[in-house]
Amino acid sequence: MTETLILHEYAASGNCYKVRLTAALLGLPIERREYDIMKGETRTADFLASVNANGRIPVLQAGACFIPESNAACFYLADGSRLIPADRFDRADMLRWLFWEQYNHEPNVATLRFWHGWIGEANWTDLQRAQHPAKQAAGEAALALMDEQLGRQDWLVGDGLTLADIALYAYTHVAGGGGFRLADYQAVEAWLRRVEAVPGYISMDA
Amino acid sequence: MTETLILHEYAASGNCYKVRLTAALLGLPIERREYDIMKGETRTADFLASVNANGRIPVLQAGACFIPESNAACFYLADGSRLIPADRFDRADMLRWLFWEQYNHEPNVATLRFWHGWIGEANWTDLQRAQHPAKQAAGEAALALMDEQLGRQDWLVGDGLTLADIALYAYTHVAGGGGFRLADYQAVEAWLRRVEAVPGYISMDA
Repeated sequence: MTETLILHEYAASGNCYKVRLTAALLGLPIERREYDIMKGETRTADFLASVNANGRIPVLQAGACFIPESNAACFYLADGSRLIPADRFDRADMLRWLFWEQYNHEPNVATLRFWHGWIGEANWTDLQRAQHPAKQAAGEAALALMDEQLGRQDWLVGDGLTLADIALYAYTHVAGGGGFRLADYQAVEAWLRRVEAVPGYISMDA
Repeated sequence: MTETLILHEYAASGNCYKVRLTAALLGLPIERREYDIMKGETRTADFLASVNANGRIPVLQAGACFIPESNAACFYLADGSRLIPADRFDRADMLRWLFWEQYNHEPNVATLRFWHGWIGEANWTDLQRAQHPAKQAAGEAALALMDEQLGRQDWLVGDGLTLADIALYAYTHVAGGGGFRLADYQAVEAWLRRVEAVPGYISMDA
């Protein structure tokens, strides 16, 4: 890739960390621009017009092109690399985990981390309190599904690290902050350590 | 593709229709196996063990391989075809719309169609009643974002139909069933008619 890569982000977001981790594992330098989501900096007229009409981070900027949605940004960086399987079924299976992450895992595991760590339980609305039990149960079901898969194989897809592992590592390794007990998912914990041992790995606060 | 394709589905689901529409546009024959989600037929021990541990449809079966997640199944079918852009940025941009569909569009537009058409407002739980205003607003925001994009260009990505259009057509064209007024989104309505004019198009009830 020859164009300059800029990540528009909020560093503590797991969705943003996914993109940084993908770039690091591929040895791609990436500039970082921080926005404070707690101050509404991704909802300003300027951000909506020039970065993302959907008002969210991360957005990967590659030259003059902007790519919202964390997993699409990771795919852009990794396209043609070892992080995306060459086999047609494995490639679709990797995407299966990426879509599942956004539908079944992130809205529960990541959302409860945000509710606990950024909003604070004392400040939850009545609606958040009412939604909490279902989100907790759905997050636990997501972690259990990963645990089942990772009890059978070392990596989510095929026999090596792919974007599926990167995307799911991001919020899983900090799930404790959302009130989940990772110790209940031993195959997941062993897999977290495998991801962290991959050459080029960087931590979320790097 | 030489292996037999079988779609494990619930025909009225837009997520299942996406896969049928993709196959039809590519001229791929596909067998259909119907499960009644209202009777829990995707949560039986047999379904969880042999089709999808996540207990959901659609699942595309290609020979001995099973692919859950509608957009991953569409990608498998379309891999290497004109429905996935050859350009690296356009390909990531197409995936951007697919991830956005599952995160911002489907949980609102499709969920409210299900709540209205399958559960019935009289039977909503207190939690559903409490969640309804936010889901209505988020669904309207999703339709407005599509309307903005489709006011600028004929197709969501590049200059022709891609999986992004197929994935978003599925629940958008029946959004009226969820209490959304499609007449408020004129660029979206014009695009729905463009999709329906593509050679090989099949309707949801075909």
